[in-house]
Amino acid sequence: MSSGLKFGELSVSIFGESHGAGIGCVIDGLPSGIELDTGRIAEFMARRAPKKDGMSTRRSEADIPEILSGFYRGRTTGTPLAALIRNTDTRSQDYDNISSAARPGHADYTGSVRYEGANDPRGGGHFSGRLTAPLVFAGAVCGQVLERYGIESCAHILAVDGVYDDFFDELDIPARLMKDIKSREMPVINESRAEEMRERVLKAASELDSVGGIIECAVTGLPAGVGSPMFDGLENRISQAVFGIPAVKAVAFGKGFGFAEMRGSEANDEMYIENDIVKTRTNNNGGIYGGISSGMPVIFTAAVRPTPSIAKPQKTVDIIRKENTELVIKGRHDACIVPRAVPVVEAAANIAVLSYLI
Amino acid sequence: MSSGLKFGELSVSIFGESHGAGIGCVIDGLPSGIELDTGRIAEFMARRAPKKDGMSTRRSEADIPEILSGFYRGRTTGTPLAALIRNTDTRSQDYDNISSAARPGHADYTGSVRYEGANDPRGGGHFSGRLTAPLVFAGAVCGQVLERYGIESCAHILAVDGVYDDFFDELDIPARLMKDIKSREMPVINESRAEEMRERVLKAASELDSVGGIIECAVTGLPAGVGSPMFDGLENRISQAVFGIPAVKAVAFGKGFGFAEMRGSEANDEMYIENDIVKTRTNNNGGIYGGISSGMPVIFTAAVRPTPSIAKPQKTVDIIRKENTELVIKGRHDACIVPRAVPVVEAAANIAVLSYLI
Amino acid sequence: MSSGLKFGELSVSIFGESHGAGIGCVIDGLPSGIELDTGRIAEFMARRAPKKDGMSTRRSEADIPEILSGFYRGRTTGTPLAALIRNTDTRSQDYDNISSAARPGHADYTGSVRYEGANDPRGGGHFSGRLTAPLVFAGAVCGQVLERYGIESCAHILAVDGVYDDFFDELDIPARLMKDIKSREMPVINESRAEEMRERVLKAASELDSVGGIIECAVTGLPAGVGSPMFDGLENRISQAVFGIPAVKAVAFGKGFGFAEMRGSEANDEMYIENDIVKTRTNNNGGIYGGISSGMPVIFTAAVRPTPSIAKPQKTVDIIRKENTELVIKGRHDACIVPRAVPVVEAAANIAVLSYLI
Amino acid sequence: MSSGLKFGELSVSIFGESHGAGIGCVIDGLPSGIELDTGRIAEFMARRAPKKDGMSTRRSEADIPEILSGFYRGRTTGTPLAALIRNTDTRSQDYDNISSAARPGHADYTGSVRYEGANDPRGGGHFSGRLTAPLVFAGAVCGQVLERYGIESCAHILAVDGVYDDFFDELDIPARLMKDIKSREMPVINESRAEEMRERVLKAASELDSVGGIIECAVTGLPAGVGSPMFDGLENRISQAVFGIPAVKAVAFGKGFGFAEMRGSEANDEMYIENDIVKTRTNNNGGIYGGISSGMPVIFTAAVRPTPSIAKPQKTVDIIRKENTELVIKGRHDACIVPRAVPVVEAAANIAVLSYLI
Repeated sequence: MSSGLKFGELSVSIFGESHGAGIGCVIDGLPSGIELDTGRIAEFMARRAPKKDGMSTRRSEADIPEILSGFYRGRTTGTPLAALIRNTDTRSQDYDNISSAARPGHADYTGSVRYEGANDPRGGGHFSGRLTAPLVFAGAVCGQVLERYGIESCAHILAVDGVYDDFFDELDIPARLMKDIKSREMPVINESRAEEMRERVLKAASELDSVGGIIECAVTGLPAGVGSPMFDGLENRISQAVFGIPAVKAVAFGKGFGFAEMRGSEANDEMYIENDIVKTRTNNNGGIYGGISSGMPVIFTAAVRPTPSIAKPQKTVDIIRKENTELVIKGRHDACIVPRAVPVVEAAANIAVLSYLI
Repeated sequence: MSSGLKFGELSVSIFGESHGAGIGCVIDGLPSGIELDTGRIAEFMARRAPKKDGMSTRRSEADIPEILSGFYRGRTTGTPLAALIRNTDTRSQDYDNISSAARPGHADYTGSVRYEGANDPRGGGHFSGRLTAPLVFAGAVCGQVLERYGIESCAHILAVDGVYDDFFDELDIPARLMKDIKSREMPVINESRAEEMRERVLKAASELDSVGGIIECAVTGLPAGVGSPMFDGLENRISQAVFGIPAVKAVAFGKGFGFAEMRGSEANDEMYIENDIVKTRTNNNGGIYGGISSGMPVIFTAAVRPTPSIAKPQKTVDIIRKENTELVIKGRHDACIVPRAVPVVEAAANIAVLSYLI
Repeated sequence: MSSGLKFGELSVSIFGESHGAGIGCVIDGLPSGIELDTGRIAEFMARRAPKKDGMSTRRSEADIPEILSGFYRGRTTGTPLAALIRNTDTRSQDYDNISSAARPGHADYTGSVRYEGANDPRGGGHFSGRLTAPLVFAGAVCGQVLERYGIESCAHILAVDGVYDDFFDELDIPARLMKDIKSREMPVINESRAEEMRERVLKAASELDSVGGIIECAVTGLPAGVGSPMFDGLENRISQAVFGIPAVKAVAFGKGFGFAEMRGSEANDEMYIENDIVKTRTNNNGGIYGGISSGMPVIFTAAVRPTPSIAKPQKTVDIIRKENTELVIKGRHDACIVPRAVPVVEAAANIAVLSYLI
Repeated sequence: MSSGLKFGELSVSIFGESHGAGIGCVIDGLPSGIELDTGRIAEFMARRAPKKDGMSTRRSEADIPEILSGFYRGRTTGTPLAALIRNTDTRSQDYDNISSAARPGHADYTGSVRYEGANDPRGGGHFSGRLTAPLVFAGAVCGQVLERYGIESCAHILAVDGVYDDFFDELDIPARLMKDIKSREMPVINESRAEEMRERVLKAASELDSVGGIIECAVTGLPAGVGSPMFDGLENRISQAVFGIPAVKAVAFGKGFGFAEMRGSEANDEMYIENDIVKTRTNNNGGIYGGISSGMPVIFTAAVRPTPSIAKPQKTVDIIRKENTELVIKGRHDACIVPRAVPVVEAAANIAVLSYLI
C-alpha cells in the first residue's frame, strides 16, 4: 500500500493525481459514533489552502471534500470513511511545456523510471503537493476523534529562510496559544516574526526563487504509556507519516540533531513526581522514551525543502528525448510551501497518534 | 508487530530482553538460494560489539548468533531465517539498585506504564541497546543479499560531541573508502578526527558523563526508480527502521535541516545526462525524490543522543514507591554509543532498501 | 483495514454503504503501464448486475464505475487506482420499516453491536451485497493484469438448491469453455441444468423464500511455484478474499470435505513428467500443495447461503426497543444470489492470485 | 511474512524446519501481565504430540518449548514472546532415499520450484507438520489470555474415514464437555465412536495407507459484536489461520456446504431476546453474521486430507533428474493426522479470536 498508512487497525489510503478527475482518501478503522463537525474540518483544510497573499499559488482550490461513506447522521459509522475532492481548476496547458523536461527537485524523473513512463505527469500527478489535501482531511477527522481523549496537536512555522519563530515551551503548550496559532494566516507563535518571514518569501519570489523552512509540532494531552518499543513507536509512526509530505526531508524529536553536542547529564530529563503525576523538568526527548510517551508534550520538528518549482531557467534532462535541455517552469507555484505545510504536519501527527488509541 | 519491521513481503521480527534467556530475530521473505558468508556476518556484528578501548561497556558479549532455520548447506532456503543469541554475561546484580528508580533518559518509566509494570526491567529489558545485536544480524544478512544487486551501504561517525568527521562526497562514495571505514575501530572518513573524538569521549567518561553524535550513512549502487510515493518511500521505510535504534532521535535526508536556509535554485539538483545515464551535479536531496531513488547515492544522517546511563547522581522518580529519589547508576555503560551505532544504522538501511527488491 | 485486502504489495480498500452517496474502491500496488479495456471491465461487472429474469432484485443498478485516479491514457499509472459508483436508485423508504427490527441472517444485529448503533442501517449499509460491485471492479482490473501472465479464472454455478451442474475437468479447463460460461446468463457448464436451477429459484421466490448453492472456481495458467507455506499461501489468501463475499460460508480446495472419506493412496495425486513439465494424473488437491501452486489448475468451491432477505414473516428482535417482534421484509431481493455471486468469486480469486505476481 | 499471521496488533511468526536446529515462534502484541501456566501449555501441546497408540509416528518428540523472551516472573511482559523447540530425534537417514523423488501429496515439488531447490528438503523442511508445534504453543498462550475474557475454544474429531462423532450442540457447549474432550486420547464427544475410528485408522495403516477426516471447533463465551465486515471478519481471520495447518483443505462455518440445499426460511436463525440478551433459536450461521460474532457459539469445521506419507509404492517424479520414478516412503508417519490436528485447529482459532480483543 504505497500511498497509504496502515498502523495497527487504522489505515488511511490516499489516491489521486493533480490533474486527474479527483483526489481523496479512505480512512478505515475509525471508532463509530464520533460526531464530526464538517465545518471545523473545512476550517482545518482552509489552513492548507492557497492564500491570496502573494506567497502561494493562485490556483483556486475550494477543495471541499465530499464524504462518500462512513458518515451517517453526523457521526462516524465505524466503517470506511471515504472522501473525494474533485479537480476543477486544473489548467493543464500550463504544464504542456514540461511534459518531457524533468523539473529538478521534483519526482518527474524518478517517477517516470519507477512507473516506466506510464504515470500521469501533469502537475506532478500523484506526486503533487495537492495530494496533501486528502491527508489534511484525514488528519482533521482523526483530530476530532483525538479530542475525545483530550489530545490536541498544533504545528507552527519555526523557521523560514533563516528567520526563526519562538520555540514551543517544551513543558507546557497552552490551549489558548494553539487556538491562536491555528487562526493566524502565518501560523507562528511570535507574530512579530511573521512579517519578516513574509518579506523573505516575497523577496525570493521576486527573484524567481523559493525558500524552505522548519515546522515544529506539539501533541498535548497524550498520557504516558502510549507507543511501542523499537519499530512501531511514536517516532517510527510519526516519521513514517510526516515523510509522506512531499517536501519534508528531515524529522527530529526533542532536541534532535542538537543532542550531538549535549552531554548525557544535560540531555537526560530530570524526573519528579507532583500530585502523583510523573513529570520531567526539561523535555529534551520530546516526550518520548523508547518509542513511548512520557506524558509530557510530544514535540518534533520537520525540515521543509524550498519549493522545487521556481521560475528561474534551470538546466535539466528531457526524459523522453534522453538529452540535456533547459527548462523554464511557468504556472502557479508557492515561493514557500512552509505555511501551507503546517496543517499537513499536524494532520500526519494526528493520524499517527490516533492509531495507538483505537 | 511492535518490535518488527514489515515492508511488503519482507519482515524482520526482533525479540528478547537484555537479561533474559536470549535475544534474536526472525527474517521472513528472504530470497532463496543466497549464499551467506557467516564469517562476514560475524565481522559485521563485531563492529557493533563493545571494544576494549575504554569507551564502551566492558560487558563481554561474544554474541555469535546461532542460525536456527532458513539456512541450509550455506544458503538461504527462502523460508524464515531465525537466529538466537544467548545471554550469558548478564550480572543482574548490577541492576538491583535501579529496579524501581527510573533511569532518566531511559524507557524505564514509559515502559512500566505501557506494560503496567509487567515488563522485564533488568538492564532495560526489551528496550536495551542490546536488542540492536539481532538487528545488526538481520542487516548483515540483508547486506549480503544486496551485494547481488551491486548495492552497498556504509555509515560513519559524522560527529561526536561537536567534533566533525568529513562528509561523504555526495556524488561518489568509492568502494575502497567504504571498505576502509568498515575496518576502522573508529569508523570515520578522516582518521585524524578519530583521536579527538576519542579524547572527548574519555573526558566525558572521566567526568561520569556521556556524549552524543551524528552518523552519516550512504547507500550506493541503488538504481533509479526504487521506492514509492507518499508513505512507503525510501524516506518512510528508512526512517521507520532507523528510529528503531534506541538512541536515534532525528533522521535527515540529503541536506536535511540545512534546506531551511537554502533557496530553491540552490536546493534543486541540476540534472544532466551522460552516457545515457541521468545524473545530478549536486545531491542535496540525498538521492531521493518523491520517495524514489534517483540513481545517485542515497545519503542520510541520524542524530544519536548521549548515552542516558551516566555515573553521575541523578534526581528521578521511584516508580514503585511513587516518590522522588536520587539515583546513581552502577554497572558498565558506554560513554558514547555512536561508534557502536554505526553498523546498526547500516543494518537498518540494508533492511529498508532490500525490502523493495524482493 | 477491516474492509480491505492487503497482500504483500497489493491492497484493495473498499468503501461505501448501500444507500449512502456511493461505493467504490482504491487499488494500490498495480503494475504500471497495463492497458485496461474499460468495456471489458463493464462486461465483467454486468455479469454481477441484477438480471430481468425474475430471479434477482429489480433494483436498477447501472453501476458503471467512474475511475478517479491511477489510469491515464488508457493505462494503469502504477499509483492508486480509485473508482466510484454513485448510488442513485436507492428507495430508502422500502427500508423504513426495518430500521429497528433485525433481519434474521443479516448483520443488522451484529453490526449494531459492533458499531454501537452508529452504522448506517439502510439496506444493510456497509454489509450490503452491493459492496461486491467495487470488489468485482477490482477483480476485473486484476484479471486484465493476470492476462499478461496467461492466467485466467472462471467460476460457475456448481449447485443451486440441490441441482448440480457438472464439475470442471480438474486436469484441463479449456479457454473456450471459460468464455462460454462467462457469456451465459446462468453461468453453468452444462446448460441443460440451467433451466432446472431457474425453476427452483422461481419456485422458492413464489413461496416467498430463497435458496442457496455452491460456486466452483478455477484458475488456469498459473505456473508451478506461486504461493507460500503456512499462513500466506494460496488457500489462505483466496479464502480470506472469498470469505469477504457476504453470503459465502465455506471454502474448499480440491476435494475439500470429500477428503474425509478418501484414503491417502487415492487422495495423493500421482505425479509424472511430460515434455519436461511436471503434471499430476489427478488433481484432488486443487493444484495446491503446501500453499503453493503445482502448475495444475487451481480449483476451489464456495458455499453460498440462501439469501437471508425473504418475504415470509419472520420472528426476530427489535434492536432499539429490545423486544421480540415479527418482521415482514419488503423491498426487492434476489431469491438466489448464486448466479450474481459467480463473478464476485472470480474477482476475489483474481485479486488473491495477482498479489503473488507483482 | 509468509509464515506468520498478522492480525491488527497481534502477530505470530513461525520458523523452523523439521530436521534443522529447531522450530519456534515469536508472538508480538500480547497484553502484558498475563499469568501463563506453563504446565497447562505443556498439556495443550501434549495433546498434539504423537501417541503410543499405533496410530501416529513413533518419533519421540518431547517438544517442551523453551520460552526465550517476553515472559518474566510468570507473566507476559507485553514485549515479543519467543519460544524455541530444539530438534533432537531427527534420524535424517530415514529421508535419504526421498531427497530427490517428490512425495505425492506433499509440497516437495511445489516447494522446490518456489524456492528454486534451495529449501531444506529433509522431512518436508519448513512444510513439515512438525511446524504445527509452535503454532500450538502460540495458540495455547493465546488461549490462556482468552480465559481472561471468559472465552474458550474446543475442537473434536467430527469424522475419520466416514465414521462420525456427534456434532456439538450448536446452541450450547458446556464447559464440562470441553474439558472432557480435551482430556481424551481420542478427542470426541461420543466416546463410543472412538474405537471404530481407531479401527479404521489401524486398518488403513495395516494396508500401508492413511485416512482423512473432519474436525469441528467451537468458540464459546465470545460476546456479540466481535469481528469486522468484509475482509477482516471472523471467517477471514479464522480461515487464514486454519488453512495454515498443512493438511487442511476446507473450512466451513455453521452449516457450510449444507446451506446449498437449504431454504432461506430454514437457514435464517430466528432471533429472540431473553433476559436482555439477544439469542437465536438455531445457529446455522455458526455464530457469525457479516464477519461479526452474534454471541452464540462460533462453530466451524475443517477438512483434513489423508496423510500423504503412505508406505505403499507410489509413482512420482524425481525433481533433480527430471524423470519419472517410483517411491516407497520409509520412516515414521501417522496413518491419520486428525487426532493430532485437533489441538492445532483450536490453537489457530485462539490466535484469530484473540486478535480482535487486544
